This record gives sequence, C-alpha cells and structure tokens, in this order.
Amino acid sequence: MKSHNYVFHLPTKVVMGDNCIVEHRSLLKELGHKALIVTGKNSAQVNGSYRDLVKALEANGQAYCLYDQVMSNPTVACVFEAAALARQEHCDWVIAIGGGSPMDAAKAAAALAVQPVPQAALFSSVFSQALPIAAVPTTAGTGAEVTSNAVITNDAAQTKTSVASPALVPRLAFLDARYMQGLPRHITIHTAIDALSHAIEGMLSVRASPFSDALAKTSIEAIADCFDALEGEVPDWNRTQIRQKLLWASTLGGMVIANTGTIAVHAMGYMLTYFKHIDHGRANGLLLGRYLQMVQVKERNEERHRIPEILSALHIPNLESFTEILDRLLGTREQFDIPELEDYADRASKAKNIANALIPPSRDELLEVFKQSLG
Amino acid sequence: MKSHNYVFHLPTKVVMGDNCIVEHRSLLKELGHKALIVTGKNSAQVNGSYRDLVKALEANGQAYCLYDQVMSNPTVACVFEAAALARQEHCDWVIAIGGGSPMDAAKAAAALAVQPVPQAALFSSVFSQALPIAAVPTTAGTGAEVTSNAVITNDAAQTKTSVASPALVPRLAFLDARYMQGLPRHITIHTAIDALSHAIEGMLSVRASPFSDALAKTSIEAIADCFDALEGEVPDWNRTQIRQKLLWASTLGGMVIANTGTIAVHAMGYMLTYFKHIDHGRANGLLLGRYLQMVQVKERNEERHRIPEILSALHIPNLESFTEILDRLLGTREQFDIPELEDYADRASKAKNIANALIPPSRDELLEVFKQSLG
Repeated sequence: MKSHNYVFHLPTKVVMGDNCIVEHRSLLKELGHKALIVTGKNSAQVNGSYRDLVKALEANGQAYCLYDQVMSNPTVACVFEAAALARQEHCDWVIAIGGGSPMDAAKAAAALAVQPVPQAALFSSVFSQALPIAAVPTTAGTGAEVTSNAVITNDAAQTKTSVASPALVPRLAFLDARYMQGLPRHITIHTAIDALSHAIEGMLSVRASPFSDALAKTSIEAIADCFDALEGEVPDWNRTQIRQKLLWASTLGGMVIANTGTIAVHAMGYMLTYFKHIDHGRANGLLLGRYLQMVQVKERNEERHRIPEILSALHIPNLESFTEILDRLLGTREQFDIPELEDYADRASKAKNIANALIPPSRDELLEVFKQSLG
Repeated sequence: MKSHNYVFHLPTKVVMGDNCIVEHRSLLKELGHKALIVTGKNSAQVNGSYRDLVKALEANGQAYCLYDQVMSNPTVACVFEAAALARQEHCDWVIAIGGGSPMDAAKAAAALAVQPVPQAALFSSVFSQALPIAAVPTTAGTGAEVTSNAVITNDAAQTKTSVASPALVPRLAFLDARYMQGLPRHITIHTAIDALSHAIEGMLSVRASPFSDALAKTSIEAIADCFDALEGEVPDWNRTQIRQKLLWASTLGGMVIANTGTIAVHAMGYMLTYFKHIDHGRANGLLLGRYLQMVQVKERNEERHRIPEILSALHIPNLESFTEILDRLLGTREQFDIPELEDYADRASKAKNIANALIPPSRDELLEVFKQSLG
C-alpha cells in the first residue's frame, strides 16, 4: 500500500429486503413534509415500486407530488422542469424511483430546487446544498443510490457530464429486488455489466483504498457468480436469488465509485452513448475487456499488479476468457468506422476521469481499445 | 440470502495515511470551536499523535483542553469527570486519542456533556444527542472509531456495558499507522485478535448482510495475512506494512460490528475482563476457537454454513488449525476453577448480545466453551 492519504465515506443509510420501503417507512418521515417523486414514464407503475412508496407515504401522513417525465440519459431541460415543479409545489425533499436516469435527474433537481441557476450554468455551478434525497433503484447497475453525482446529457459539450456535490448523496436507499423481477434479459445484462465496470474501474483508480477494494472485490465476485445464470435462459437470470445478488452487488459498485470515481472506460463509454445511443452499461461492457488487456500490458512495469487481483475476484484465469464471457453476454458487437473512433478517442482523452486512472491511458491507447472493441 | 430486511449505515468519514491529521486538518474545523481532547496518561504523548493533533488544531486556530486521565476499561466516574470538564471549559466537540478505552470514554463524555444524567442512570439513559466526536485510534483492534457505542465498566452489574446511540458515531476517524509503531508485541496481538473477533462475530450475527460480510471477509483475510508476522520476531510484526494492514482491518471490523453488533464471544470475554482483568482482545481470543467449534457442530443442521466461509477467508483448512494458531499467538492460557466458570456462563448467558447470534448458544454450551478454553 502506498503511503498517500485516502478518504472513505459512505453516508447513505441502505435498507435492503422484500417490502423494505413499507417496513422501514418511518425512516422517510425524517426527510420532510412533502416529497417530489421523480421517475420515468412507466416502469415504476409496472414493477410495484410506486405503489409501495405511495403506501408508505400515506401511512406516514406525508404529502407528495409526481414528476414522471424522465427519459433515458436525462436532458438539462428535464431536470429544470422537475426542479420547477418541486419549487412550485413547495416540496421539501425528493425521492427517485428508477434506474440511473430518474435517480440522476432527481439529484440534479434536488440541487436546483434550492439553488436555481441559469440552464447554461448547470455544469459550471457549485451546489453546496440540495433538498434531502432518497432513492429506490429499479435496475441493478448504476449505484446512483449511494453516489454524490448526477450524470446529465450535456449537449453543449456533446457528452454526458456529472454534476457532483456531497449534498447530492441520497440520505436513504431502499433495495427491493422484487422491482427487478420483470426486467428483460438485455437490460439485466447491461446493468450488471455497468455495476461490474464500476467495481473494476474503482480498483484501477488512484483513489482506491483497502476499504473501496473490499467492496469492489465482493461486488466483482458476486456478479461473476451470476454469469452462468445471465448466459442461460429464463428463469435462470430472473431467479430471486440472482436478482438480489445483482442488486446488492450494484450498490457495492456504487459505494466503490462514490469513493474512487470512474476511469477511462466510462469516459469512452459516454461517447458511444451520446453519439450512438448505445445503452450505458452495454457501452462500458463493449470496451471493458480490451481496456483491461491494455492495462495488463502496461502494469507489467509497475509495482502494483491489479489485473491479477481483478481476475482472482472474477474467478477467471485470464482476460481473454473474460472478454469471451462479455462477448457471449453482449451478443454481436456494434462496428464503427475508424475516423469516427478517432474522434471518440480524441474526445475521451480530454475527460477528467482519465487522470483518475492508476495507469492513465494516452489518446492512442484509447483509440487502440476502441478499434479492438468496435473496429 | 434470507428475505428479511437489513439496514447498513457507515456515517463516519475515514481518513487514512501517514500524517493524515495534519494533512486533512481542514475537516476538523467543521466540528467546533473548542475541543476536549480525551486520552490516556502517556501513550498519546509518546507515539506522536497528541503532537500532530495539537499542530493541526493550532494551524486551524481551534482552541482545546486536555483530559488525560482515562484508564483501561474506563469507569463511570472517569467519563463523568471528562464530561464535567467539557462543560466547564465550554468545549463544543470532543476528540479521542487512544485505544478503545479513551475512545469509549470520549463518546460517553460527549453524550453526558450535552445531556447530564445522574451517575446511576448512565446505563439506563437514552442519549439522543452528543457533542460532535472525532477519533484517532492508536491501537489496531477496537474499531470504536466507527461504532455507535461506548463500553464502560459497570460495577453495579459486574460487567462491561455499552452506552449506545447514533449520536455517538464519530464524524471523523484518522488512521495513521505510525502511532502503532512502538506498541509491544502482546498488545499488537491482543488488539489484532479483538479486530478478528469483531469480523467473525459479525458474520455470525443475525444482522449480517452482504455489505457487512464484504467488510468482514476482507478484515479476516487481512488479519490472517499477518499471522506469520505476528508469530515472528521483531521487526516482523512491527513492519510498516503490517501496522497499516492491521489498522485498516481493525477499522473494517469496527464497520462490521457497527452494523451487526457482537455476539456471545464478547459477552463471555467481558466476564474475564471484569473479574480477572484479562485484556479485552486476549479474552476474546481465548474463547474464539472453541466457540467456533461449538457453532460448527450446531450449524451442520442449518441451512446456512458460515464456518466454511470464515475458514475460507482465514485461508485455514479447519478450526483445529485456527485454534492452534491462536494458542501460539496467545501463549500459555489462563486456567480457572469450574465453579468460577459456571458463574461466568450464568452471567454471560443473560447478556443481550447472545440473542444477536445466528445460532444462539445455551448457558450449558457457553459453559462448555469456557471449560474447553480455560478449564
């Protein structure tokens, strides 16, 4: 272990188990009198999470109003609309239900509700406070229920950009795997790979510590334990035990990046999501195997060997086998022209999470990963 | 995983590394204007921690006063004396430097400073608030830097009793392994075994979750990695790398019991400490091996097999080998008469942490563990 200093902090209280929103509804009382519920158009209604939340709030005698217009990869306009509703309705706390998009939108809205700024200033503003936030993930991937940032589509910069502040860390997260029961296989796989990427990128971050490593290795092991089920047919990957394991593993992944940040895989993946509309988790998965192979070659000259530790947590002998598993899970890879990939490598190389890598990649190395993954 | 609900919460911000108090002194500014420093008579002066803290406070322009009269297994009188000093000196926050005793005393004093109660009511009072607390552990064992309880000698009940409240969780913990550099071998071993016992007991608690297990397994692995060094001669067990590993492993153990509580090993160990003045960590170590053997026999009929998971984290093939390692580390075992052990089993069987065990032991099973360990 290097002697430089680490900070480790996990302020979110995490509640886990079937029906946990209703059973632990008293915890919601501390957050405020009137909630803004932030969610997408349909899924919270279908998977039962919205019904449970309303039941808990009504039993508590807490008022609420609903903003259900969050789309995938939420826009600046969307989060300003949610914040305006919170102010107009005098909401004093925010609760998100959904995958990463509703959670990220809710966090940004919670900040904007307290501290309004012009739309053009969203990404350059420092948010020192926000309405108290709770989160109910309904996919098992993003980990946004325990992180301090909100990833919002940034059309001015043509990428996705984080709004980050300690004030955006949810006070409470409710993990109920029943809400994932109806998710299709491809979403289950893409979100699981997103969580896996968080844990792995966290181990390759300059901010990795024994604390974040403890969480990361357990997350990697748990997700790797689910690979066979994910490769199988229904009901394999939809079994309750698999859903629960993927859910807590994804929250562990969130706890990791809450302390380490992400590195180059996410920086590169944002290009594929912004320009090619490839699902966020899938985008990371397409790049992850080749990225690790590049790191393995470079870290042979380093004091610290993280790839063997990652492989050990995966229970996989080598990165070639790992890439094969990812290939089977992801199916046919998208292919893009070299000039396009060169543009993405240029852009990704300027992202701030590149410098967060223990072994920072050059622009040409990023291009090589893009070419091997998608060329 | 059972479907019952779990809550996982780790509110302490942990800072780790050489010179971390001075380097991260800005974090102390948020806690208050005048600190009560709570410590024992000598060690904080000798190991450099007091000097570093004063340097940080003075650089911050924060006032402080010193209470340095905490003894091992602090008494009720001691914590009331510290609380009285805090009130008299108008301290608005408390920082502990030391092993478990100063940290526990500081926590109880922080509560009593805000909410004075009669001495006789200490263990029956509910403390809903306390002065903000920071902690600087100078042994690697107790984990009190991240837990919500303070263990105080309870002469009325002839044991050690916890005062517990969410308000007692330290806001900040500073982990600097340099402060352990001068600790003698027996203290290093006893405190390491205390930390190991926390991680293992946490895995055997009804409140164990995938989150606490992630931390527990990493803690167990790290401490087991140090067994050879601890069995060796100086400088083996005093190497910087060993000191650092034992320190973060003990904080991980604290994070575990902050969420799971301890079980019967601690309940039994308190008897040996109260009546026989056996060091707390050593008391746990004397009982741990035989206790696990008892659990192993009983859990053969259960759905959940935790002993194999614990052995796997220890990288040890069976519990007999584990007990042999503990024997080598602890040296000659104390021996006591059967009637005395019967009395301890009676008393321990009434402790509240007995019911916290996944497989709760009977009074006769506790007696059997006492007899096999110390008869």
